[in-house]
This record gives sequence, C-alpha cells and structure tokens, in this order.
Amino acid sequence: MKEKSMTIERDVQLDQDTRGVFIQEVGISQLKYPLHMGGVEMDEAATQQVSGELSLAVSLEKDLKGIHMSRLVEDLIAHEKTMTPPGLIALLLRLKEHQGAKEARLTLAFDYYLDRQAPVSGRIAKQAYTCGYEARLEGSRLSVLQKVEVPITTLCPCSKEISAYGAHNQRGYVNVEIEHYFTVEQPLNIRICLEEVIEKVEEVASAPLYPVLKRVDERFVTMQAYEEPRFVEDMVRNVAVFLKEDERMDRWSVKVTNHESIHQHNAYAIVSGGK
Amino acid sequence: MKEKSMTIERDVQLDQDTRGVFIQEVGISQLKYPLHMGGVEMDEAATQQVSGELSLAVSLEKDLKGIHMSRLVEDLIAHEKTMTPPGLIALLLRLKEHQGAKEARLTLAFDYYLDRQAPVSGRIAKQAYTCGYEARLEGSRLSVLQKVEVPITTLCPCSKEISAYGAHNQRGYVNVEIEHYFTVEQPLNIRICLEEVIEKVEEVASAPLYPVLKRVDERFVTMQAYEEPRFVEDMVRNVAVFLKEDERMDRWSVKVTNHESIHQHNAYAIVSGGK
Amino acid sequence: MKEKSMTIERDVQLDQDTRGVFIQEVGISQLKYPLHMGGVEMDEAATQQVSGELSLAVSLEKDLKGIHMSRLVEDLIAHEKTMTPPGLIALLLRLKEHQGAKEARLTLAFDYYLDRQAPVSGRIAKQAYTCGYEARLEGSRLSVLQKVEVPITTLCPCSKEISAYGAHNQRGYVNVEIEHYFTVEQPLNIRICLEEVIEKVEEVASAPLYPVLKRVDERFVTMQAYEEPRFVEDMVRNVAVFLKEDERMDRWSVKVTNHESIHQHNAYAIVSGGK
Amino acid sequence: MKEKSMTIERDVQLDQDTRGVFIQEVGISQLKYPLHMGGVEMDEAATQQVSGELSLAVSLEKDLKGIHMSRLVEDLIAHEKTMTPPGLIALLLRLKEHQGAKEARLTLAFDYYLDRQAPVSGRIAKQAYTCGYEARLEGSRLSVLQKVEVPITTLCPCSKEISAYGAHNQRGYVNVEIEHYFTVEQPLNIRICLEEVIEKVEEVASAPLYPVLKRVDERFVTMQAYEEPRFVEDMVRNVAVFLKEDERMDRWSVKVTNHESIHQHNAYAIVSGGK
Repeated sequence: MKEKSMTIERDVQLDQDTRGVFIQEVGISQLKYPLHMGGVEMDEAATQQVSGELSLAVSLEKDLKGIHMSRLVEDLIAHEKTMTPPGLIALLLRLKEHQGAKEARLTLAFDYYLDRQAPVSGRIAKQAYTCGYEARLEGSRLSVLQKVEVPITTLCPCSKEISAYGAHNQRGYVNVEIEHYFTVEQPLNIRICLEEVIEKVEEVASAPLYPVLKRVDERFVTMQAYEEPRFVEDMVRNVAVFLKEDERMDRWSVKVTNHESIHQHNAYAIVSGGK
Repeated sequence: MKEKSMTIERDVQLDQDTRGVFIQEVGISQLKYPLHMGGVEMDEAATQQVSGELSLAVSLEKDLKGIHMSRLVEDLIAHEKTMTPPGLIALLLRLKEHQGAKEARLTLAFDYYLDRQAPVSGRIAKQAYTCGYEARLEGSRLSVLQKVEVPITTLCPCSKEISAYGAHNQRGYVNVEIEHYFTVEQPLNIRICLEEVIEKVEEVASAPLYPVLKRVDERFVTMQAYEEPRFVEDMVRNVAVFLKEDERMDRWSVKVTNHESIHQHNAYAIVSGGK
Repeated sequence: MKEKSMTIERDVQLDQDTRGVFIQEVGISQLKYPLHMGGVEMDEAATQQVSGELSLAVSLEKDLKGIHMSRLVEDLIAHEKTMTPPGLIALLLRLKEHQGAKEARLTLAFDYYLDRQAPVSGRIAKQAYTCGYEARLEGSRLSVLQKVEVPITTLCPCSKEISAYGAHNQRGYVNVEIEHYFTVEQPLNIRICLEEVIEKVEEVASAPLYPVLKRVDERFVTMQAYEEPRFVEDMVRNVAVFLKEDERMDRWSVKVTNHESIHQHNAYAIVSGGK
Repeated sequence: MKEKSMTIERDVQLDQDTRGVFIQEVGISQLKYPLHMGGVEMDEAATQQVSGELSLAVSLEKDLKGIHMSRLVEDLIAHEKTMTPPGLIALLLRLKEHQGAKEARLTLAFDYYLDRQAPVSGRIAKQAYTCGYEARLEGSRLSVLQKVEVPITTLCPCSKEISAYGAHNQRGYVNVEIEHYFTVEQPLNIRICLEEVIEKVEEVASAPLYPVLKRVDERFVTMQAYEEPRFVEDMVRNVAVFLKEDERMDRWSVKVTNHESIHQHNAYAIVSGGK
C-alpha cells in the first residue's frame, strides 16, 4: 500500500479522469426534505408543506473525476420554500452553474392533499394524491414532467354483462404524466395543473374514491359504478381522449392499473402521445 | 490513534463485555437463499424449490462481546435441502449448539405455488401464496409458528343491501398464523398444514381468487360473491370460527385486510385466540 | 337469490351476529392524512405539519355485526390539528365512545425533520427521522408507545482489528420503542421525547449521519468512526444501557440493523426490557 | 337502469370502440409464477427453478373494445418450462398471434442464485442476483433487454485521501441493462450472458460481496477495498468502459447506487450508450 500522506488540501474530485466516459447523470437520490409546494394548482399563494423525496443530479465531463455532492443539498436548501415550477427551474439552473455542468436534472415525489366531498351527505375530508415532477436542463433546453396518481373505482363491463346480478369491481390507479418543452429564454409555459387532471380522471372513472362515505353516499357510488362499467382499456382511453385534445402539453402518457378483485394479478393499459 | 498491531489471531468476538446486557436476539436478516420446502402439505415427498428470505439468530450472554455471524449461513447451507418443520427444528438446534447459545430463532418467508382450477371451465393454473415460519428454541422449549396469506374477494353486505343494483367488492388478504408449543424431548407435533388452512379460508370468502377465469367462470364468481357478501368483520369471524374449533394448535390469529374499492384506505380486522 | 328490497333505512351493521366471536380490533389502515404534530419535543408550540399514515380501530362485541367505519375518519378530522400525545389520547377516547366499544387503538407513522449541523464546517440542513406512535385504550387502561428510527454509521471492530489498514463500515438503523402505561384517571405521564432519544443514540454510534458534509467534515466523521468501532452487538448494548437506566418509561426495546457493506444480508440485534 | 338481459353468449370485448385510441400496451402485471430459467448462462441444460414476477401485454387496435386477458396466462403456462431467451421470444410470438395483435411485450423479474467462494478460506455459498428480461415484438421487429443488479462494496477515495486513517465504505448496487435488436426472420443473436456481466462488475468494484466470509476473508476484502477506492463516478465508468467495448449488444446502460454510510441519502450515477 502506498505511503499515506495527509492531503486535506487536495480535492480528489478535481483530478483528471482518463477513461473518456461522459456521465449523463450523477448526484444523490432518496433525499427526504420538507418542502413548500406551490402545489398542483400552480398557485403561488396556495402552498402546502410536503415531505418530499428528491433526486438531484448533473452531468460530468469525461475528463473530470467527480462532482461536488454536498453542493446539491446546499442548493436545494436555498430553494426549499419555493418548489413551484418556476422554483424548480431556478434550482435546476443553480445546480448546473454551481457544478459547471452541461446538464442538470431533478426528480421530486410528494403526497399532495385535496378536499373531497361525499356526493350525497356532503361530508368533506382530505385525500392524498401522489404527485411528482421530473425537470431537466440540457444547455438552454428545458423539460418539465408533471406526474400524478389518481386512485379510482372500476367496474368490469364483461362481468356485468354476463352475470344475472352483481359485477366485479376494484380499486384502480391512473398514472398520468404530462411533459412540457421550452428553453431558458422562453417565459415558463405550464398552463395545466395536476388538480385539473385529477378531476378529469375522476369524472371518467366508474366512480371516484372518497375519504368519507356515509350510507347514502355508499349507495350512490355503488349504483354509479354499476351504471358506468369500465374495462382497463376503457379507462385508459377515456383519459387519453381528453389528453389528446389538450393543446397545453408537448407529451403525455397514461397508465391505468386495476387491482382485479377476482385475480391476484393486476390488469393494466398504457397509452402515450404528443405533438 | 493507538499503534496498529496486526492481530488476525485475536478474535474480538471472544472478548469480555462489561456492559452487563444480555442480547435476546442477534444474527442476520434479509438473507435470500434457494430452499427445498416440504411445503404446506408437510409431506416430505411433495417438495418445491423456493426462493426464501430468512433471518437466523441466537441469544448472547451478557459477558460475551459477539457471536460468530459466518456460522449462521454455514449452518443454513447444511439444511437447505430439508426445510420442512423437522428440518427447521434441526437447524435451530444446530444454530444454538454451534454458538453455545441459550436460545435460537429463525424466520422464513417464501412464495408457495398451488394449482387452482376455474369453477366452470376447469382451467388449471398456479397461484402464489406467501407463506412463512417463525421457529424459536429456548433451552429445551420449542415453538413453531406457521404463517400464510390468502388473497380473496369480499363483497360488501351494506353496499348490496342499500343499493338498487350492484355492490362494491374488492381484493382482500387473509393472514393466518398458527402456533405450536412443545419441547425438544417431545416428538414433533404439527398436524395442520397450510394448504388445509388456505382451502378453508377460500371456502368462507365471498369468492376465492383464480389465476385463470374464462367468461363462464367470471359469471360464476361474480354471482357467487354477490350471493355471499362479507364485511371484513364477517370474514375474520368466519376464519376465527374454524380456528377456534381446531384442537391441533396452541395459539392462532387471523387478520383480514380489504383493499376497499370505494376508498384509498383499507378496512381490516384482527382476532386471535388459543388454548 | 332472494327478492331485492330497497332498504336504505336498514343498517346492516346493527344486525345481531350469532358466531360468538369478539373482535379485538376492527377499523381502517393505511390512511394518509396531513397532521400537525406536537412533535418529538412534545412541545405544543413546536409543531410541524407531517404527512401521516394511520390505522384507527376499535373492538367489537360478539353479538354485533359491524362497526361504523366512516366515523373513524370523521373522528380523526376533529383531531388532525392536535396530534400530540394528549391529542392522541383524546382521539382514542372519542373513537371508543363514538362506537360504544370497550377498546380503541391507533397507530401513526410519519417523517419528522430535525436540523443537523456538520461537525467542523457547521453547515446546517434537515434530516428526516421516521417516527411513530401506537396508542391503546382498554376500558380505562391506557398505553402509549413512542417509536423512532435513527440512521447511523457503524464500523466493524473485527475488520479494524484484523486488517493492516481500513475497516468495513456501513449505514445502520436503530429502532427504539418506548412504552408508557397509565389510566384515563391519571394525568398524562410521558416525560421522555423522541428528540432526546435520537441524540443519545447518535452519541453512542460509530458516527451519526449528516445531510450535508464538506470535506473537513467528511475527514472528521471518517476518523471518528474508525476510532469508535461498533459491532451490531455493541450498538444495541450501548442503547440498552441508557434505556435500562431511564426511570421515565415502563417498557422499552431497541433493534439495530446494519446494512453490512461486505454482505448482501444485514446483521441485527434486539434487546428489550422494562420495569 | 336498462333492463337486465342474460347474455353470456355476447363477448363485450369484441364490441366496436369509437374513441379512436390505439392502445400500445394492455395486459396483466405482477403475476407471480414458478418458471424454469435457462438462466443467466443461457445454457439450456443449466436450468434453475425461479419464482418469477411477470407482465404480459399486447397492443389493441383502435376499433376493438378489449383483449382476452385470460389467454395471457394460458399462453404463459404453455411456456413456463422454457423461459430461456428463445422461449421468451416463442411466448411473445404466441401472445401476439393469440390476440391478433400488432405488438406484444413481456417483462420478467426473478432472483437467480450463483455460488460465490470466499477469497481466502474458499468457503462456498449461494448469492442472489436480481435479474430480469424485457422483450418486445413489433410486427417482425424484436428487442430483448437483459437486466441484472449486482451488489458490491465501494470505498470513498476522497474519505481515504483526506483522513489520517480509515475511509467510509458502503454497499452499492450496480444495475446493468443490455439490449439486443433483431427480427423474427433472424436467428436469435444473444451472445452475452448475465453471469459474465456480474463477474466483470464484481472485478471492477472496490470489492465484491460474499454470502460467507471467515475472519481471514474479512481481512482480505477489507484491505482490498481500502486499496481500490471508487467514487460512484469511478464505478459507473469502470462498468461503462467494458460495456462500450463490447460488440455483442446494441444498447446498454449502467446505474450505480451507493447507500452512503455517512448520509441517509444515496449517491448514484448513470451512463448509457450503444451502436
């Protein structure tokens, strides 16, 4: 083993690397941090404190040995109070500049709470929606991906059709992703908010889910679901139809997963599209 | 820092410990290993190779610094082909003796596959059941806990009763645990097998789950579930009733969890009992 | 199938049950809700909004068919702003009374954030600690269990002793549970806070973890860990020693799990005790 | 509600759909099934029974209402004994034809066990490697993605350089994906096996992981890791170097994730490339 020399002055990360490999993405992941979200409404005022899980990364030139990991968390701290889409982009720019990198990326996942009102009794309680962002900066090109998971009820049309009474139904999950492309020179151009997407998804399900249902409400949603059967194929198409018609996004995708009540496995369907 | 001396001869684990703390359980966990299970039928012949996840541990006297971790895996290897209840107990005895410990414990989780036949079409396919064992040896006292999770369909009696048509139903999970106490002097006395428990649980559900259902089968299970509604309370009681009457176990518990199709949260119920 | 009668008036839950099975615990689980915690400091003032995951349950007499599930969420909503230990007990009492039950139970898990300061550079950032409560009311007897997971560094004494240089080390997790028993007539008697437990655990580890470390800090913690090696047995004993001496709790347990850097499996140890 | 008519004869899946949405992927997911793998060696002889988790899907034309879900499991059963790359492709072709679809896809994840020998004592035990396949058929174009996760030890060069003694190290995970493109007319052209990739990854780590290490082995791997420090950047580059030079694949990617022993968050790096 080579003789040990104390070199706190020497920063190994700044050494030359000779392997000739450009690293697209290097940073930290599974970082939990309390954040203030502008939220799914994109309304700066309507903030909600969330417990976020993040990844923060930059690219690394082929001749550089390593990045400065500790700066990633320091840069996040400077933006923790403003994690709105504009704030996310400001953070991306800071990450890129602070590391002298060509590219910067971040992902963020968090539970966002919205009030949901029972359809007959009017009872109101909060329901959690798992939301997320993926933002990427390459040179001056920017992309922002909005993500949301909407839990719903789906009732099987085949089961209803072929049975004298009843129909199997189950909890399903609709994962919608909406992507926007622009440049650092452009004004931020994100006009759709996740709350709007959540509501449209719930409208086209057999029935939405609710945190509180009294018996009159349970009767209502049971019969609503029976009157509005949906295959996983129907559900994914219903969402695709309104996403296709929406001019406000560059790319979109929707995945529906039904936790089949008659099987241990799930049924799923995926449709994606864009300009 | 104290001068470094090369002492491969010295085994730190054998040092004296002066903190006066007896450790009930020390060992390894989340060890994945391929095992041959006598299986839920407890029939030595009917073995199935499974991918097991294990924990292996022993107790440690208050004056000893540490155990010999590597021996735990070596002892497992000597028994990997015979992980039947008698094999588990043989392994426990080996763990205890090999470490000179007062107590030894192991836990094992694995997916076990059983054929399931569609009720009308007769189609057969395999369904996975998550099974497990927890075995413990204290001096000469032995306990073996058998565990199984049975996925089922449950249909809500209230939803059916109050609605003009339809009823919400969902996938539910029934977790049964059965415990047996005896001593190393006694002959092994485990007379119940998990396959029998699985079948009894499926019989008292609104409907069992199946890996393959043709349309005639789907009609059958849809109507069966509608005719046999179960609250989570009903389901846990149906299982408790046959466990209470069974003389072959010392302790038992049952937990039922319904993945409610009208809520994002689950409904659950627990009953336990014994001699 | 019996003739369908519309009976929204009839509440199936109120039917008589004849199976003779008392249910110890029936309710809801995996309910996500935004809560205001008095927090690990138990200081009413120092609250933090958290994203909680809860289970809420009561017991059910053997002659009653079912409980009123929707009331569980309604009762939670009435207490969401005061989830301090006194608030948890008030919620327990409400759950019990609102369902006319003998027993009530709740569990709560949440990430709580505390500032952590780098040892040399003094950089401050937040670190998440997974905390929890389990509270139970049986007649007038109360128990409250406080739970916390503290991530740490552990360095292997054997590896250090037998190697000419270096020593394997890894991330470890210390799970501490502290239980308190009292009655509804007694004043609330919880004098220990999780933040105090977290700090004591970090003090007896090879080194604590930090959200941000500059190079001078990394040098400090690297050498600290090398000078303070800990087997999983040492770590569990170090925590047990201060828990044993603490008069403020009725029961306690500690589990340490090392994600061994030389193995794919973990090493773990458990000690528990009490008055 | 429309008058209920019993129409077991009518297959709703065959109805016309008017929404005009082509579904790229519809099928089942999280299906557990026992499978015989040709395994990472691609040697038909050397099979291993594994517990697989699969997704099976096809595309659906815009004018068709739904697919035949039950056929997906039936098709799998016909191939469960031959899940080698040729078997996977045969299954893909069957899925496509059986549903009259343009495209078919499958994913498969499983734990594969390989013997690992301690470097000094020579002790042998099995270690689990999480492996997977993603196969896709579009018209006559085929792609097969091989996936493997290799757990390793990484020791931090910066920590070693700046500290008088010791260096932080931790468990890391290297996820390699290798993709092959060809057509149904071509002979199967997969010349690289995952076992070869696993061994190359373990060779370029600070040290491999082992299921069993005696003290002489622990000394060896501790000193080996100290002599071979790796940043997450170094590790991802070491793997990228040998993947870049390999002519046998069309696309590849490598992700390295270090479970930092000084932080609660992870460090990660990603490089991808291809012809």
